[in-house]
Amino acid sequence: MSAYSLLEQHFRKIGNLNHVQAITSWDESAMMPSGGGEARAAAMTTLQVLIHELTTDPKVGDLIASAKSEPLDAWQSANLREVSRTYRDATCMPGDLVAAQKSATSMSEQAWRRHRANNDWTAMAPHLIEVVNLARQEATVRSEATGLGLYDSLLDTYEPDVTGAQVSAIFDELKSFLPDFVDAVIERQKSAPPIPVTGDFSIQNQKVLGQEVMATMGFDFEHGRLDISHHPFCGGVPDDVRITTRYDEQNFISALMGVIHETGHAMYEQGLPIAWRGQPVGNALSSGTHESQSLLMEMQACRTPEFFCYLAPKAQRAFLGQQSNDPAWNADNLFKLYTEVKRSLIRVDADEVTYPLHVILRFEIEQALIEGSLEVEDLPDAWNLKMAEYLKLDTQGNFMDGCLQDVHWPAGLFGYFPTYTLGAMTAAQLFAAAKLAISDLPKQISRGDFAPLLLWLRHNVHNKGKFDDYNSLMTSATGRRLEVAPFRSHLEARYLSS
Amino acid sequence: MSAYSLLEQHFRKIGNLNHVQAITSWDESAMMPSGGGEARAAAMTTLQVLIHELTTDPKVGDLIASAKSEPLDAWQSANLREVSRTYRDATCMPGDLVAAQKSATSMSEQAWRRHRANNDWTAMAPHLIEVVNLARQEATVRSEATGLGLYDSLLDTYEPDVTGAQVSAIFDELKSFLPDFVDAVIERQKSAPPIPVTGDFSIQNQKVLGQEVMATMGFDFEHGRLDISHHPFCGGVPDDVRITTRYDEQNFISALMGVIHETGHAMYEQGLPIAWRGQPVGNALSSGTHESQSLLMEMQACRTPEFFCYLAPKAQRAFLGQQSNDPAWNADNLFKLYTEVKRSLIRVDADEVTYPLHVILRFEIEQALIEGSLEVEDLPDAWNLKMAEYLKLDTQGNFMDGCLQDVHWPAGLFGYFPTYTLGAMTAAQLFAAAKLAISDLPKQISRGDFAPLLLWLRHNVHNKGKFDDYNSLMTSATGRRLEVAPFRSHLEARYLSS
Repeated sequence: MSAYSLLEQHFRKIGNLNHVQAITSWDESAMMPSGGGEARAAAMTTLQVLIHELTTDPKVGDLIASAKSEPLDAWQSANLREVSRTYRDATCMPGDLVAAQKSATSMSEQAWRRHRANNDWTAMAPHLIEVVNLARQEATVRSEATGLGLYDSLLDTYEPDVTGAQVSAIFDELKSFLPDFVDAVIERQKSAPPIPVTGDFSIQNQKVLGQEVMATMGFDFEHGRLDISHHPFCGGVPDDVRITTRYDEQNFISALMGVIHETGHAMYEQGLPIAWRGQPVGNALSSGTHESQSLLMEMQACRTPEFFCYLAPKAQRAFLGQQSNDPAWNADNLFKLYTEVKRSLIRVDADEVTYPLHVILRFEIEQALIEGSLEVEDLPDAWNLKMAEYLKLDTQGNFMDGCLQDVHWPAGLFGYFPTYTLGAMTAAQLFAAAKLAISDLPKQISRGDFAPLLLWLRHNVHNKGKFDDYNSLMTSATGRRLEVAPFRSHLEARYLSS
Repeated sequence: MSAYSLLEQHFRKIGNLNHVQAITSWDESAMMPSGGGEARAAAMTTLQVLIHELTTDPKVGDLIASAKSEPLDAWQSANLREVSRTYRDATCMPGDLVAAQKSATSMSEQAWRRHRANNDWTAMAPHLIEVVNLARQEATVRSEATGLGLYDSLLDTYEPDVTGAQVSAIFDELKSFLPDFVDAVIERQKSAPPIPVTGDFSIQNQKVLGQEVMATMGFDFEHGRLDISHHPFCGGVPDDVRITTRYDEQNFISALMGVIHETGHAMYEQGLPIAWRGQPVGNALSSGTHESQSLLMEMQACRTPEFFCYLAPKAQRAFLGQQSNDPAWNADNLFKLYTEVKRSLIRVDADEVTYPLHVILRFEIEQALIEGSLEVEDLPDAWNLKMAEYLKLDTQGNFMDGCLQDVHWPAGLFGYFPTYTLGAMTAAQLFAAAKLAISDLPKQISRGDFAPLLLWLRHNVHNKGKFDDYNSLMTSATGRRLEVAPFRSHLEARYLSS
């Protein structure tokens, strides 16, 4: 058996254990009773350690070296590249650094829950100092292993092939127009405020409508489920994708938009190349690409007048029992209601226009923290300054709604934030290309016909797995690397025209 | 670190992987969409192979040898005994025999689904010949490893410390009175037939009532769940027990009795010794003991006039919306309805009076098959003869309702059948002892107070795990080894007196 074949066999084993881990993690969030948590944590740790041992087995390194001189086809070469990346990323970190991070972030996450609730920056700061210190060490180690810059080496673990410089250039362009753009949209929306939709929306009716919309979009229920969890997510494995939502009985559209978002993630997983299940090249390309698939569905395809034309009569039947002429329930009003723009302190509550400003702020701060030009002590001041500049909001002394609002940094996640906005922009650029390729795409969506769009995404994104790198994928799907123009055009068309 | 401590550490790791396997298996039956099956099967196989490799690691054998001369307390000694048994049972089987069995039983189970439906003995026989042949080889191997007889060595994997001779003696005594007893009960029940309970029983209402009964019995919902699956079972792990049922919208008591049965299993798991989670001595004692806990709840505590006194008003409120004077819904009638005895061809549909006869028939046949005094070709004749003798039923030519009705033999399970009736008899003997120890136990049950009974079971059975062997446990809980008298007295009191 060739070295390459032995690698595939070894990674199939790892893929199978990842399958078990994914299903058990989903169970933990969606099914497990609270008393099962302690035993589950121990069980998951054992499984993770086993997966790590298999991934870092020195024989993998030897096989990679041998496989490089074997004749491989294009997919096998791409898989070998991704196997090498996986092995490099897993082996470069010294065990004592991993252990120190695990311990520090676990303490820090617990502390964050307490100190954020009490708005207590002073108590939280020492934890963040420790976590940032360890993240800087990680960046140094990864930088040596990859040859990338400090921050880039962390970004690389979520968004391979994208550099901080590429992100900065894009974000600078966004910053140059977004703050004024927000002003203009808010001013414009004042003139014709939407009518609130009120009522009691039973969970059962919301679930049935959600499943109908999922099926319409192309989610394959033979290979997936919809359930409830506190934090909505997309989990499971490509052959069995588990998405979750949470329901608000006073507001059916927030959960429905959440379901549509997760369905976008899920259809990416369901569309990954079947021949490469469990192999590194068969996985989703990157965090930003994953987010692009959820946001393409949520923001580009469904938060549109066309989609609300499709949805309004179905929602009326689901919740009112019949068609209705109530102006609150017509498609135009629903569209207006769910495209309202306002400045808010909290990122997760932000609309698509202000959201990038929240992300840019975090990107700039975390880059400075990792590269050493900002210290944790100065984080609140940096936050306040940027919040005032980008969003005209005052966060002085309000740590809980300011720099302590997200779990990411307490959990040791640095390099993740930019992928949210890269995803939103990627979605806009892909959707613009899809509209050029598919005649009448908006009209199809108004009829609930997602098949041509899904086919286009299957072909240009899903079926590729990690075969292409991100910049190549964008060039082949849209003719260009990621640019600001399609996202800007999308915002202008939706919020400032017609 | 002592050899014994290293063994505990190693088996904690195995226990953690067994946890993951248990949850993923439950998911497969209760949650997984059908399209996930193929990938799941591959994932589970990888996990099982890993668990097997860890269990049979030669270092375990070395550690066991060293630990035997270390100072251990009583529980540690018992754990070492169970570790040794686990290691012996996992290592004694040659890999090629395990592989041959896996392949043959997989083919044979699939063939059984087809051929049973077509009543095709001729097509099924070659599969059974192969499976029996491999089971005989397994018995030979296990017999050499354990020093037990051929059949006993298989029985030992489900019911350690119980021999075929002990089972035969007990079953012969049952056989001496049960066939006539069945006649007498059927004759007696003719005189006052119960009134059927009809209605539409929504799944949601059944589920709510089932959960209320579970909570009343003492099931801890902080450490477990109730869900739906095609075949009801009790799965999960002691800290997170997952039971399932299936609902019949025309008959609420069948599912409820199923829920009560699985709750008995579940409370055994929830009561296993907390200090020994994941260690072999912390597991349930045996298949028969497990069945005794489900049947104690179902047959001894709940299929009683007292329990129906508790249940009838709750069921009336759940399904009729109010208390009812309808005679079909009174406690006496419900009790009569769910203690009807009749001869039937199918074991899984049998009542508690005829059930042991189904089991005795299977025990005698499988013992003869394994020991070589019966060949597969002669199985249908042996079945027909015993069915006529024990249950006065004719199964000639009716293979699907005769010797092809159970999946056990096609699946390679030999030595399991007797544990059903050992469980029923153990339940009767334990319950009789509990009634002596707890004053007014039946009255407590009529009030829905299960706490004293559960406490008694915790102390005498659950908390012991595998610390005692079966015969010691029975002696310490009831003063005697298993005897026929308590089971016979139970049947006589329920079916022939008052």
